[in-house]
Amino acid sequence: MAQSGEDFRTIWLKPDDQSVVQIIDQRRLPHEYHVHDLHSWQDGLTAIADMYVRGAPLIGATAAWSLYLAALTGPDPGATVREAAAALLKSRPTAVNLRWAVERIIRLIDQAGPEDVIVDLVRSDAQAICDEDIEISRGIGTHGLRLLEAISEKKSGDTVNVLTHCNAGSLATINWGTATAPIYFARQRGIDVHVWVDETRPRNQGSQLTAWELAANRVPHTLIVDNAGGHLMQHREVDIVITGTDRTTRCGDVANKIGTYLKALAAHDNGIPFYVALPSTTIDWDSRDGIKEIPIEQRDPAEVRDIYGLCGDKPVHVRTTAANTPISNFAFDVTPARLVTGLITERGICEASEAGLLGLFPEMATS
Amino acid sequence: MAQSGEDFRTIWLKPDDQSVVQIIDQRRLPHEYHVHDLHSWQDGLTAIADMYVRGAPLIGATAAWSLYLAALTGPDPGATVREAAAALLKSRPTAVNLRWAVERIIRLIDQAGPEDVIVDLVRSDAQAICDEDIEISRGIGTHGLRLLEAISEKKSGDTVNVLTHCNAGSLATINWGTATAPIYFARQRGIDVHVWVDETRPRNQGSQLTAWELAANRVPHTLIVDNAGGHLMQHREVDIVITGTDRTTRCGDVANKIGTYLKALAAHDNGIPFYVALPSTTIDWDSRDGIKEIPIEQRDPAEVRDIYGLCGDKPVHVRTTAANTPISNFAFDVTPARLVTGLITERGICEASEAGLLGLFPEMATS
Repeated sequence: MAQSGEDFRTIWLKPDDQSVVQIIDQRRLPHEYHVHDLHSWQDGLTAIADMYVRGAPLIGATAAWSLYLAALTGPDPGATVREAAAALLKSRPTAVNLRWAVERIIRLIDQAGPEDVIVDLVRSDAQAICDEDIEISRGIGTHGLRLLEAISEKKSGDTVNVLTHCNAGSLATINWGTATAPIYFARQRGIDVHVWVDETRPRNQGSQLTAWELAANRVPHTLIVDNAGGHLMQHREVDIVITGTDRTTRCGDVANKIGTYLKALAAHDNGIPFYVALPSTTIDWDSRDGIKEIPIEQRDPAEVRDIYGLCGDKPVHVRTTAANTPISNFAFDVTPARLVTGLITERGICEASEAGLLGLFPEMATS
Repeated sequence: MAQSGEDFRTIWLKPDDQSVVQIIDQRRLPHEYHVHDLHSWQDGLTAIADMYVRGAPLIGATAAWSLYLAALTGPDPGATVREAAAALLKSRPTAVNLRWAVERIIRLIDQAGPEDVIVDLVRSDAQAICDEDIEISRGIGTHGLRLLEAISEKKSGDTVNVLTHCNAGSLATINWGTATAPIYFARQRGIDVHVWVDETRPRNQGSQLTAWELAANRVPHTLIVDNAGGHLMQHREVDIVITGTDRTTRCGDVANKIGTYLKALAAHDNGIPFYVALPSTTIDWDSRDGIKEIPIEQRDPAEVRDIYGLCGDKPVHVRTTAANTPISNFAFDVTPARLVTGLITERGICEASEAGLLGLFPEMATS
């Protein structure tokens, strides 16, 4: 499995055919490892909307590569890119990286001179977005590592128990992940880390993605249902919670996978540090009150009703409910800044507040 | 479906064969309705341990009927009952009704005179335990109804949104349920009630039992994942939380299905009333600090790993995780009394505290 190490990537140009972008079809993990080809920007849109790929940074990167595929098409690449951009922006409302990546490339096209070849501009920027994302994860890992080192020291080298929700791992980014980067870096330093993996209903990104990639990277871990974290925290079985985020407001409110708020409440109630790891690309500098301002995507009830698993050795979807059970499926919730101990960014760790964020990103002070 | 109304029961003597006790095999719901015969106390033990039946009151009743089956056996019914009692007491460590029901019947046998027929004593007491349980549920329903009436009035007749976790319904008791009794009684009074049903991983009692019995009783409901309740409460989509309990301490700490604590935290954080409905048989008058004193059962990891559902029209279990994923499966957690707005008992509603409980059960003051 190509999971570990420096060379791993979650999205790449097909080596022998530069008109094809390749991704891992994450819907099929852990039961099948399948590389999926994107031939058109519409394929990219489907991959985002139907969650072949997920995770805020990887959604952004996939949108960028979709615009590259758009630029390959038609007589007026600029027009096709703009058309694709409009469609992509509507595909996942909560993740702010999507908007960030799309707007970055549109700006590039807007500023292009007559001598520029659109497709080359977009390709090199999509590539740059991926390369930058890896450096961002590396920065998050380096800063977050300090938190795990400090806990390990305080526990005289005893196991550091991290709880995480959803998948903010390599699979959510280009490599290393956000919440997982400090964990991988700590393991490289020989720190004894164990991860409690929240199953993360309804899509089971914890049991199907995080557990898979932690196993691939030989990180000790234990899968639990989403209901269990509070009990573990009451009994001091969790030293720190680290999650990712799909969008963080200027004031430090954090939108993340549904259920994150409940874990933050439990951490707060038990005096356990709750950190959110984020590339600065997921900060929405234009919003302040996350609960009021961040749109929460509602997805297909089928995601709750039908579960993906192996029946014998055959991957199937089974219906867990009665046929006519009414279902709501909210994809995200917002954790208010008051429950967040700190934000781990590529530039360092800060308080979850406007002052904290502006301390690390002073260039945003006037925005 | 025999779900609705006065005549419904979850456990009964087979009409044409008084040596057989019948239950609904709840593991097969909602996909199959199957009545299961208990021929021996060992069958009863299996039904409890393997969760053909679950829910604190129904576990107690099934234990009582298992002792009746034991009394039918062997040359020395008293000895067989004692042997069965010892085995039953070990089958589910958290539910206190099990101990209550078993000890009640053992006491009866201890006090039996030479003229008493053991099997008749045990049968009539098992019957009495069931009849009393129905009256207890009726009491809980009558008192809890007042809370829903008050909310309905405050909302000028708008829908009252109740959130519940796990199944504390008819299926967890003999009839009417504990948490659901106020809901059924409110519906009978024409109050507009809607129930948010927590899926309740890992065993999906919400999606597979509560949704099933609410549908059978024509109560409007919507299934959500366990992660969603906090988000709904932040957005005022929940007016009241009502859950059951497997054991409540003298001081009002509440052990219930894993994840209940997280909902209580969210209710508290959003100023939403959090009530626990309980027959007084689930009060453990000998314990005070629930987090320290109540044993939390750990169950088979397979309950997390394998999910029951329909593949086409065939009921199957599918494995959701990779084969080698390490899993922990804690069955309950403890919600501290400080997070509980009130306890709904068959004698009335009280504060979740020793003073509150003793106000309703003064006879326990000296214990």
